[in-house]
Amino acid sequence: MSSPPIATAAMLAIGDELLSGRTKDKNIGQLADVLSIAGIDLKEVRIVGDDEAAIVEALNALRARYTYVFTSGGIGPTHDDITADAVAKAFGVPCRHDPEAMALLGAMYDRRGMEFNEARQRMARMPVGATHIPNSVSTAPGFVIGNVHVMAGVPQVFTAMLSAVVPTLAGGVPMLSRSVASPFGEGDIGTALTAIQKNHPETSIGSYPRFDGNRFSTEIVIRSREEAPAVAAERDILSMIAEIAAAKAAS
Amino acid sequence: MSSPPIATAAMLAIGDELLSGRTKDKNIGQLADVLSIAGIDLKEVRIVGDDEAAIVEALNALRARYTYVFTSGGIGPTHDDITADAVAKAFGVPCRHDPEAMALLGAMYDRRGMEFNEARQRMARMPVGATHIPNSVSTAPGFVIGNVHVMAGVPQVFTAMLSAVVPTLAGGVPMLSRSVASPFGEGDIGTALTAIQKNHPETSIGSYPRFDGNRFSTEIVIRSREEAPAVAAERDILSMIAEIAAAKAAS
Repeated sequence: MSSPPIATAAMLAIGDELLSGRTKDKNIGQLADVLSIAGIDLKEVRIVGDDEAAIVEALNALRARYTYVFTSGGIGPTHDDITADAVAKAFGVPCRHDPEAMALLGAMYDRRGMEFNEARQRMARMPVGATHIPNSVSTAPGFVIGNVHVMAGVPQVFTAMLSAVVPTLAGGVPMLSRSVASPFGEGDIGTALTAIQKNHPETSIGSYPRFDGNRFSTEIVIRSREEAPAVAAERDILSMIAEIAAAKAAS
Repeated sequence: MSSPPIATAAMLAIGDELLSGRTKDKNIGQLADVLSIAGIDLKEVRIVGDDEAAIVEALNALRARYTYVFTSGGIGPTHDDITADAVAKAFGVPCRHDPEAMALLGAMYDRRGMEFNEARQRMARMPVGATHIPNSVSTAPGFVIGNVHVMAGVPQVFTAMLSAVVPTLAGGVPMLSRSVASPFGEGDIGTALTAIQKNHPETSIGSYPRFDGNRFSTEIVIRSREEAPAVAAERDILSMIAEIAAAKAAS
């Protein structure tokens, strides 16, 4: 392929609640959708608990390997919100109450006649050198340090922060995607589909089984950064489905 | 704590579709729920694409570190189903068409008058030394090798396989969980909650913000392997909420 270098990404979702089953993550799918549109390849996701060593280790592994890293969770005002401190530790810089964030939050609580107490001040903690990610929902900012984007875990806030971050990313060539619904399960199409993938190496063909409780069908997805190879692969897939249907009708 | 050693677990969800946003994972939350009830601590989750090197690396990292590893996805009949081969590679053993699985699947397709073709035979591929995980939904088995449990990605099949696996696991002491709904956001309760956590070290207290589009409230969750410490922490949390409510009413 003659495409420019592809930007890659990883996500680190942080929170005991994701591992205990209490909260079902919604941010991974949201980030995957948004990056897909932006032409940035999400390559890996990790989920770890509110544990400093686990966060530091995962973050250092991911930030060394991918163009961008996005984290969710652990930047609120309570004792289990340790993401800012862990990120600072991963980068080997001090974590402190960021003066700009203190001013921003102080003014907000002042306007509302609410106390800017110790817990709320925790939300201003950031590694030295971080810059803000604005939060249009609830003011307390996320932050960027190096290639790591630190965002909130509450889905509405994560989404708001992500909207602010996306225009700052050097996007790639968006992956085009074409989808063909196959009435036949993977067992019927697998052999032929393998041959089609081999004949269209510029595309990535995935097959996603669906099960309705009785029988399998398949969604076949062709992904490619250019249109012509995807169209050619789609044509072969439609022919394959026609042949299988004809064979079934004749049997 | 005087509890017996805790069994730990990790999950490796496999599939390009999870990273492209096309499929929103449902299996992680399902596994988290089931392990929580079984008293096994899910410590880490990773999601990787249909990429052999990525699967091998993640699997080797996780299986060395945790009591159990559970994978989802990539054991179907198509070219992008490479999990069995990748798992064999991680364990340094050959991957072959398992004779028992071939017999099981062959008989099933025979009964249905369907061809047991090359694609369907892929579903019988397992590392040498693996044992089956039964699949009550669609017959094609998952497998266990070492501490790694390889299961399907289709949620109905994943769930069926997981039900078969759970009774085989050496469970731990289930984590008890008590939940207190706080009408106040984390900013109001954070400072006091930090003190309560410090006073109840046998418990793990988490706070989970909810945002209704207008204001934050919090779900406070106390987790403990014994009941008495959780009850004591819950009492202090209820007192804290009463105090904050009284202070707000007076102001």
